[in-house]
Amino acid sequence: MEKHELEVCLSPQLFEYIGISKPYTAVIVDIFRATTSIVGAMDAGVKEIIPVKGFDEAKSYKEQGYLIAAEREGIVPDFADFGNSAFNFMIPEAKGKTIAYSTTNGTKITKMAAEEAEEVIIGSFSNIQAIADYVKSKNQNLLIFCAGYKNKFNLEDTIFAGALTELVMNESFDIHCDSAWAAYDLWQTAKKDVLTYIDKSSHRYRLRHLVSEELVEYTFKMNTTKVVPVLKDNRIVAL
Amino acid sequence: MEKHELEVCLSPQLFEYIGISKPYTAVIVDIFRATTSIVGAMDAGVKEIIPVKGFDEAKSYKEQGYLIAAEREGIVPDFADFGNSAFNFMIPEAKGKTIAYSTTNGTKITKMAAEEAEEVIIGSFSNIQAIADYVKSKNQNLLIFCAGYKNKFNLEDTIFAGALTELVMNESFDIHCDSAWAAYDLWQTAKKDVLTYIDKSSHRYRLRHLVSEELVEYTFKMNTTKVVPVLKDNRIVAL
Repeated sequence: MEKHELEVCLSPQLFEYIGISKPYTAVIVDIFRATTSIVGAMDAGVKEIIPVKGFDEAKSYKEQGYLIAAEREGIVPDFADFGNSAFNFMIPEAKGKTIAYSTTNGTKITKMAAEEAEEVIIGSFSNIQAIADYVKSKNQNLLIFCAGYKNKFNLEDTIFAGALTELVMNESFDIHCDSAWAAYDLWQTAKKDVLTYIDKSSHRYRLRHLVSEELVEYTFKMNTTKVVPVLKDNRIVAL
Repeated sequence: MEKHELEVCLSPQLFEYIGISKPYTAVIVDIFRATTSIVGAMDAGVKEIIPVKGFDEAKSYKEQGYLIAAEREGIVPDFADFGNSAFNFMIPEAKGKTIAYSTTNGTKITKMAAEEAEEVIIGSFSNIQAIADYVKSKNQNLLIFCAGYKNKFNLEDTIFAGALTELVMNESFDIHCDSAWAAYDLWQTAKKDVLTYIDKSSHRYRLRHLVSEELVEYTFKMNTTKVVPVLKDNRIVAL
């Protein structure tokens, strides 16, 4: 089988400098926590997720009758129906519904990727093998696009990129991208004990008082679902 | 002793997002190859280096009577007196001279760092311990600023950042920067066999036909000199 290009983009700020050839598939990742939550929501039976940016955009969807998921620094605003964590969607009321999900970083990279990639897929540790299987079957160049945090590099998105690179690299991809090698090598270090590893990350440090240990464990648990959420007409649906 | 902040900037494109408090010292690094060559030149007895960007700027220094070091893709232009490699300066004619050194990435980060940092230091593997000793003695916040390649992340600058982080971290610095942890962890993997490690980097791959094995070995050899080049009034001089 012909081998394809694989690149990792470590921050939205570096997106314009990627050298990958089109057409390509983009897997977007924001481990803490948009993409982890969106995969969790689809797995729990949510029908569609509309990624929206700020609370103002979320409110306009509220006025149109949509359910709203929104949260900042641990606070769920009055107008929202759900918070932003994966656990919030694991309730009967969410099944079969369309939810507008407010997330600054996640929505930003979703829109950036949608303008350039042939298909945009939502990645998390919980569906990583399903994604690996799907992108291998697509037989196309692959970009793993990390949200980072406020345009900075972060460890949690990068080790996901490394883990996905490991799952697909030998069979399907040739790698001439330093970011992909760095992500792969960091994953080799991290995977021995991911929770201890991620404990030193700045994002985790910031979130310590906002995120329960239970949610952190869920966030880094691999392969709890086979759902592959994809972006179609600005809405995220299960493949 | 009070501990200070240490951050690593993985690309000029991420410089505006660093969170380090002023005043800080910046160690700039462009392993392939501006900073390695500049440290080599100072070690060989060059008096001053003036970092300049393109060939046009270099030519204007030529007209003012300066010696010029310039090279692109392995080609030394007619008007230049030296190429860009550290080996070019290890000749009697360079001793005691002021040289205008043309380098796109190196000059760019030198100017960026000079606008924000209290002091700018030129780093390479050859003077890494001397730099570590100096920045510890300064007792100030530290930014390690990687040139990358055309704004992209690269492995060689990042493992230098990790190696310098390792040399200073316990005694003098507290780290809450994911980039610094990533650099440190990559260095732990790389340092077992740096030349084999760097062989997979895209920059090395590109340079394979331009850089001799001997120069690559020189580039990653640690502590061959104690020179600490610093920027003073837009000129690089030995401390």
